[in-house]
Amino acid sequence: MSNMSRSPGRKPENHKISRELFVLTYGALVAQLCKDYENDEDVNTCLDRMGYGIGVRLIDDFLARSAVKKCRSYSETADMIAQVAFKTYLGITPSVSCSSAAGNEFSLILDKNPLVDFVEELPAERASLCYCNLLCGVIRGALEMVHLEAEVTFLQDRLKGDAVTEIGITFLRKPEGRKHKRNK
Amino acid sequence: MSNMSRSPGRKPENHKISRELFVLTYGALVAQLCKDYENDEDVNTCLDRMGYGIGVRLIDDFLARSAVKKCRSYSETADMIAQVAFKTYLGITPSVSCSSAAGNEFSLILDKNPLVDFVEELPAERASLCYCNLLCGVIRGALEMVHLEAEVTFLQDRLKGDAVTEIGITFLRKPEGRKHKRNK
Repeated sequence: MSNMSRSPGRKPENHKISRELFVLTYGALVAQLCKDYENDEDVNTCLDRMGYGIGVRLIDDFLARSAVKKCRSYSETADMIAQVAFKTYLGITPSVSCSSAAGNEFSLILDKNPLVDFVEELPAERASLCYCNLLCGVIRGALEMVHLEAEVTFLQDRLKGDAVTEIGITFLRKPEGRKHKRNK
Repeated sequence: MSNMSRSPGRKPENHKISRELFVLTYGALVAQLCKDYENDEDVNTCLDRMGYGIGVRLIDDFLARSAVKKCRSYSETADMIAQVAFKTYLGITPSVSCSSAAGNEFSLILDKNPLVDFVEELPAERASLCYCNLLCGVIRGALEMVHLEAEVTFLQDRLKGDAVTEIGITFLRKPEGRKHKRNK
């Protein structure tokens, strides 16, 4: 309600923005954290924590959109993250692969990563920085809000010379395990 | 070139992203600066400086887009900022008014401000915070790159209880004055 637009004679506002401003603002955030913390690990932790807070809030927006149906398996959940969430929020669609026989580990492969559009490479003294670690936190926070506990980390990063950027998602508990816990 | 997409069988990627992730990420940036600096003025200055750095880089993207024609007056420039730049990067179109007889002071009036979508109100101890001050810096930096020096500040802010959010732009020198300086 508070978003009511009153620009007379204009089309209804859409909710899309250009990526460049976001990418540059994210860069300013990472640069600020690098000023704040000498240790790369501290920056990574901070980005992950910030992302977690964002994911926890973003999930409501995500669920409110269009027809997001309930996922019946980890595999469906991973596809939903790649094909709906990434597409919606970052305009890209990573490919998904399952990387464990147990079926609880998945990789999102990003051929391109819009967040690093303006980044040439990491400075030598920041070799351990996970520049996009915010994304891991966002995924982790959003999943937790739908009762899925997961570890989310960068497994490969083109900024570090890898061929692709790869985000690993490991689901930590079977939903079934939670549901029936009280019967044990 | 480095942005070449290799996702097989997909539509060309668009460059629009959803606003929510940006808005929440911006909120995390402001929160971090509030942790870093006790004084609101220091946060404001830091946001403005960050925005300046972003504007300086964003202007290339802006000029490379579509048919941005050269502005012949401050008034045209102010309209361009409101109708093209804000529309492109934030998905909103502020209204513009000229607020000086000299024709070098303009106001952008934002009926709604997407950057504060998730912000209820400023905490009491942060009453002097210009939450969106990054935007002023972006405008200032971008203008400087097209040889227009300007002061850009928030004149009203709905977060502070004002009826609208108003960004004031004061152009500091006539372009003509610069061009002919050497003949004086």
